[in-house]
Amino acid sequence: MTVTSHRIELKKRPVGMPQASDFEIGDKPVPDLGPDQVLVRTIYLSLDPYMRGRMSDAKSYSAPVELGDVVTGEAVSEVLESTSGKFRPGDIVAGMNGWQSHAVLDAQGLRKVDPSDAPISTALGVLGMPGLTAYVGLLDKGRPKAGETLVVSAATGAVGAIVGQIGKIKGLRVVGVAGAPEKCDYAVSELGFDACVSHRDPDFAARLAAACPDGVDVYYENVGGLVQKTVFPLLNVHARIPVCGLIAWYNLTQLPEGPDMTPGLMRQILTKRLTVSGFIIFDHYDRRGDFQRDVSGWIRDGSLKYREDVVEGLDNAVAAFQGLLEGRNFGKLVVKVSDDPTTP
Amino acid sequence: MTVTSHRIELKKRPVGMPQASDFEIGDKPVPDLGPDQVLVRTIYLSLDPYMRGRMSDAKSYSAPVELGDVVTGEAVSEVLESTSGKFRPGDIVAGMNGWQSHAVLDAQGLRKVDPSDAPISTALGVLGMPGLTAYVGLLDKGRPKAGETLVVSAATGAVGAIVGQIGKIKGLRVVGVAGAPEKCDYAVSELGFDACVSHRDPDFAARLAAACPDGVDVYYENVGGLVQKTVFPLLNVHARIPVCGLIAWYNLTQLPEGPDMTPGLMRQILTKRLTVSGFIIFDHYDRRGDFQRDVSGWIRDGSLKYREDVVEGLDNAVAAFQGLLEGRNFGKLVVKVSDDPTTP
Repeated sequence: MTVTSHRIELKKRPVGMPQASDFEIGDKPVPDLGPDQVLVRTIYLSLDPYMRGRMSDAKSYSAPVELGDVVTGEAVSEVLESTSGKFRPGDIVAGMNGWQSHAVLDAQGLRKVDPSDAPISTALGVLGMPGLTAYVGLLDKGRPKAGETLVVSAATGAVGAIVGQIGKIKGLRVVGVAGAPEKCDYAVSELGFDACVSHRDPDFAARLAAACPDGVDVYYENVGGLVQKTVFPLLNVHARIPVCGLIAWYNLTQLPEGPDMTPGLMRQILTKRLTVSGFIIFDHYDRRGDFQRDVSGWIRDGSLKYREDVVEGLDNAVAAFQGLLEGRNFGKLVVKVSDDPTTP
Repeated sequence: MTVTSHRIELKKRPVGMPQASDFEIGDKPVPDLGPDQVLVRTIYLSLDPYMRGRMSDAKSYSAPVELGDVVTGEAVSEVLESTSGKFRPGDIVAGMNGWQSHAVLDAQGLRKVDPSDAPISTALGVLGMPGLTAYVGLLDKGRPKAGETLVVSAATGAVGAIVGQIGKIKGLRVVGVAGAPEKCDYAVSELGFDACVSHRDPDFAARLAAACPDGVDVYYENVGGLVQKTVFPLLNVHARIPVCGLIAWYNLTQLPEGPDMTPGLMRQILTKRLTVSGFIIFDHYDRRGDFQRDVSGWIRDGSLKYREDVVEGLDNAVAAFQGLLEGRNFGKLVVKVSDDPTTP
């Protein structure tokens, strides 16, 4: 049986915001199974900001997607065929399928997803890479102490929402920054943040300062741009800044106009004795055991909630990804590519 | 007996490079001794880049010098009178005299200097605050591992020269950056650095890259400016950047022209997982015991050398300080204010 994969390839390197014309949607037969491989059907595809970096050929921590290749992406899938002793048809797995309906993958790069634990899509969000990113970045890089103030940008995003909730569990004052007012409302009323401020508010700086009467001890950085510039003057001596993402700058085609703000930033780092730590989650997979234990526990006892923004159909992935870069999603963004056999 | 102190007061807040007209040189009687105080005669006054910050009223880690007050500065002195059980006339002490010939100081803020250990001026340099700054910044913030590459800016300065030599003792490849070619020669031939590059060389970037064939794992930051901009692209994944000083920017009267380089700097911090740590030595006095033991040992066994640039006479302090900000000193800059009774 020849299986055809419906797939989205990178056709051109985007300049600024990725456009539909940068991608090619088409069908291709999947290769035959080699030893220790599986053929999978994609159920949920994860869309994450880091993918913008992979579409560029600027030097980064991972090789870029080659032109003509399927776009990188993690997915949850059902195993259809297997030459691996580890997986059987019907198993649900998480792996790097890319933006396509079917894939042949090495068994080695897959992890099994147990549908009895939680909805399987959460393997891409709260119990997956974004959850682990939130956990490691806040706890290991942010080193928060109870009573301190945490500011988290992209506060209702896949990572930010978990950062803030773990902050509350650890006894911090948690202040979110988001775009839309309904996201701010959600962060406070549903996620339990102490405050959440919109960066689109004309009084953003004053409102953020008012929400942080004791200054800021940990700034979990997801966005850069205006939010970073506004938070820095509020940072306390010895504050920590885990740098997880800089989405406000991912579509830059040239550096912003001057003046050059670098001396001011560095002066704050020096005089306030700040620690700014960039990190990438694949350096920290050794923390997966602790993460899985803690976060599953917090979900079970109701202290940690999650929200998904599910887009139907692979052909809508590009538009959904554009929305992600503009902050139009509300919750962890996933594309439902085919039927989920674990839900009614 | 009324003792008169010859002193340099801050008259105006400098704009850019401090000028002679920003200071007032004059004489004032010192106050009477209170309980647990000493009257001292300044022998050596230390001149250090941080003093530029104290002359401004921008918010920083310490209160600024008030207009009309004597300029801040550490000094080595002889005790003339004492109401403290800890110090007797004739003792040599280090404390915060300021830029003046005599001072009444609380005994609590003084430490005794033993002339049999080393020349007493070293209490302001290799065995004083600059030495401790080098030690803590490199070892605790830089966390170097043998075989790694260290770049240190202001390589023959009071701090940089010690950073590089401790780097060699710890098994690193050490590359200095300095201004004058004779400083670079000295760093290599006398201090044992593997290489030293002048930032005034038109091929600075290419020469620095050539001196760091395996990239840079620790960048000990003393200067900011062009040197920082040139080192960052050479940094390896997981590099550490202890931020000790930013002398290239201390006299800025406005931010440099654009574009704003912040997004590029932050992107490097993220994708290379850098740790940028500002620090100030007075957070780290708990390391003084280890420092004193290690550095005295290295001086005694010849593995650590030091060089002083001694200016004669307090009235030359302002000109000497201007030279420091322009990198015209060669070695740890001290002003000899009066006779040193411990040398022939």
